[in-house]
Amino acid sequence: MNGKTTRRGILKGGAAMTAGLAAGSASAAEPDPLITEVQDWAMYTGAGVDEVPYGLPIEYESDVIRRNVEWLTAGPISSINFTPIHALDGTITPQGCAFERHHSGAISLRKEDYRLMINGLVDTPLVFTYADLERFPRETHVYFCECAANTGMEWAGAQLNGAQFTHGMIHNMEYTGVPLRTLLKEAGLDAAGDLAGKWVYVEGADASSNGRSIPMEKALDDVLVAFKANGEALRKEHGYPVRLVVPGWEGNLWVKWLRRVEVLDAAVESREETSKYTDVMEDGSARKWTWVMDAKSVITSPSPQSPITHGPGPLVISGLAWSGHGRITRVDVTTDGGVTWQTARLGRQGDAKALTRFYLDIEWDGSEMLLQSRAMDETGYVQPTKDQLREMRGENSVYHNNGIQTWYINSEGAAENVEIS
Amino acid sequence: MNGKTTRRGILKGGAAMTAGLAAGSASAAEPDPLITEVQDWAMYTGAGVDEVPYGLPIEYESDVIRRNVEWLTAGPISSINFTPIHALDGTITPQGCAFERHHSGAISLRKEDYRLMINGLVDTPLVFTYADLERFPRETHVYFCECAANTGMEWAGAQLNGAQFTHGMIHNMEYTGVPLRTLLKEAGLDAAGDLAGKWVYVEGADASSNGRSIPMEKALDDVLVAFKANGEALRKEHGYPVRLVVPGWEGNLWVKWLRRVEVLDAAVESREETSKYTDVMEDGSARKWTWVMDAKSVITSPSPQSPITHGPGPLVISGLAWSGHGRITRVDVTTDGGVTWQTARLGRQGDAKALTRFYLDIEWDGSEMLLQSRAMDETGYVQPTKDQLREMRGENSVYHNNGIQTWYINSEGAAENVEIS
Repeated sequence: MNGKTTRRGILKGGAAMTAGLAAGSASAAEPDPLITEVQDWAMYTGAGVDEVPYGLPIEYESDVIRRNVEWLTAGPISSINFTPIHALDGTITPQGCAFERHHSGAISLRKEDYRLMINGLVDTPLVFTYADLERFPRETHVYFCECAANTGMEWAGAQLNGAQFTHGMIHNMEYTGVPLRTLLKEAGLDAAGDLAGKWVYVEGADASSNGRSIPMEKALDDVLVAFKANGEALRKEHGYPVRLVVPGWEGNLWVKWLRRVEVLDAAVESREETSKYTDVMEDGSARKWTWVMDAKSVITSPSPQSPITHGPGPLVISGLAWSGHGRITRVDVTTDGGVTWQTARLGRQGDAKALTRFYLDIEWDGSEMLLQSRAMDETGYVQPTKDQLREMRGENSVYHNNGIQTWYINSEGAAENVEIS
Repeated sequence: MNGKTTRRGILKGGAAMTAGLAAGSASAAEPDPLITEVQDWAMYTGAGVDEVPYGLPIEYESDVIRRNVEWLTAGPISSINFTPIHALDGTITPQGCAFERHHSGAISLRKEDYRLMINGLVDTPLVFTYADLERFPRETHVYFCECAANTGMEWAGAQLNGAQFTHGMIHNMEYTGVPLRTLLKEAGLDAAGDLAGKWVYVEGADASSNGRSIPMEKALDDVLVAFKANGEALRKEHGYPVRLVVPGWEGNLWVKWLRRVEVLDAAVESREETSKYTDVMEDGSARKWTWVMDAKSVITSPSPQSPITHGPGPLVISGLAWSGHGRITRVDVTTDGGVTWQTARLGRQGDAKALTRFYLDIEWDGSEMLLQSRAMDETGYVQPTKDQLREMRGENSVYHNNGIQTWYINSEGAAENVEIS
């Protein structure tokens, strides 16, 4: 078979197990743990349904959790953790392990106490209760939410060793809520006159308020005032009871515990959109209004936290791709650091501005690999290399790094975050 | 405005709140709790990211859980609980509140100890470890899983008062796994000769083993050997580490803790497919091989557990529709017990054999309503009334009740499970 091990070849050994040998065990001399274990599973009843009215992952998966990086998180004032994307598959991110980024911590706000004010250049300033919001026509969509600082530590080269830490400030959920345009029209936009050049300023009920300006055109397009994620209420750390969903745009705009939307004739130029969330260029000037998250991808397995645990032969390379401009149309994968590329198989086609899963099924010959993935979206945009980004923006940037990521895989299957030129 | 209250009308009162009156409070005399509450939220930092490495719903949502019905669950031997569909929106069901049905309880099985045997009429009987399964090409799809007994208590008329209990034995998740056909072909199907008329017998590692026969045609079609649900590992109660996903077919076939797949030249006629999961007709004969779950729908809000909490005016009627035969193409809703029907707005188009959310936005005049929904799928099939089902099958059945459900709404907005003819 041209020196390649086939899946059949790999698994034939398994057949012997019917004679009681565990492929998992080091030598055939060891007794198969199944001999006793199976008896246990089959001889006694398991847990009843009253045990977990609301379930959590099984104890054996206790390592699949949000993780934080000490030197990044001083405290609630500025706290970050990361989605364990190296251990997930498919496209949906469970709320329980979806990354968090708070500017003054996650607050606890009851539906009964919740209010949303719409004021400024509107005919009738309004304050909505949570119950009011539930009376407007709702929509349901799947969108990714990526922090603008995701992969930011990589500008200066390979830093954090793991997809969870380099690319884990992203999650992808099915949101249900009321379009912001519906609420703006309810308050009456005639007072704003010509809507061209108008803005909305959105802020949260937390201490940071995290105020941001959004052009009216986007506010009237696909922005959602959301109260459900993946079918259920938003979790406290995701803005319960109401957060803003700004499809395709940087996560900082997705204001949690949404408190107020003011219609203005100019941007506020708040702290969060001037000293923060802008990209400082080589000459010291700042790139501003960089809202849209460009096409990007990352291989989640194999990766530093998800090494190859078997020898040569069949190997599934899998990862995630996304674009704030729409749908992912193609993802290429290289195993030799970009010398040759193969087009990956897209999993279930993700929605526009949502994560798309990709797979490349290969026969690994056991030699070293330099793994990279390169995403393309429906606008024809191609994910750039880190060097191309540095050429355009210098090395002072922190935000909006959508450069191609490289994992070095050694002959043992261990993976490492490296940078190649 | 033709006597109708507009959304604007409803919410104008809200505007006054900017002067400190809470629409939520009983009278204008009461102080607005916000005056102090807001200060608290804005003056102190909230929880840091280390608080919940794996998050749970906020305390205020503690009623949105799986619930069980005492007289239905004697113990782990036969236990059932129900998804709180009355409180969810969108289409995805979080694993934590997705219904459970166990025949001998949920067992705890480590990936290291997991084995899947494929034997019978195959060239090479194989035993796969969990690590082996991860080396085959994977697919990701969203599918609903409905217990054949869902709504079964309604054959004799309105029984349980709540959508969670009448229709909650269903969930909808994004599954990732290996197509069963891939593993069958790995073991070699030539030994089975002509595949027409061949079957696979699937069983789980739990005490019940829950053995079921599946025609080869379906086994080679869209059946998945799944290890991820909604992106993460299957929960213990959903078959960790591996369960069978049989799209569109009754939940009992979705064997959890999948242990063995045997290729046979005839169905086994096991307990689970003879004395159970067959429908006893009027003449005492049994309808067998009723695998596919026909088109069905239910209004989740308003419903007995989700009453209307506001007066006349704008009201969002929402529910779920699904079909084991493919996509939902249309859902009609009536507010007068079937005298007149309106076509509902479909939310994000669900995938084939997955839940589809529907909405009907109306102006409620405050009078009583008899709410029903009627689903249609891509085969042209129309969801029948309970009476039509009884006409065809008599009243001895327990399983496969996809009849139209009726909620009576009184002028106060309270809902009740009723039956009309």
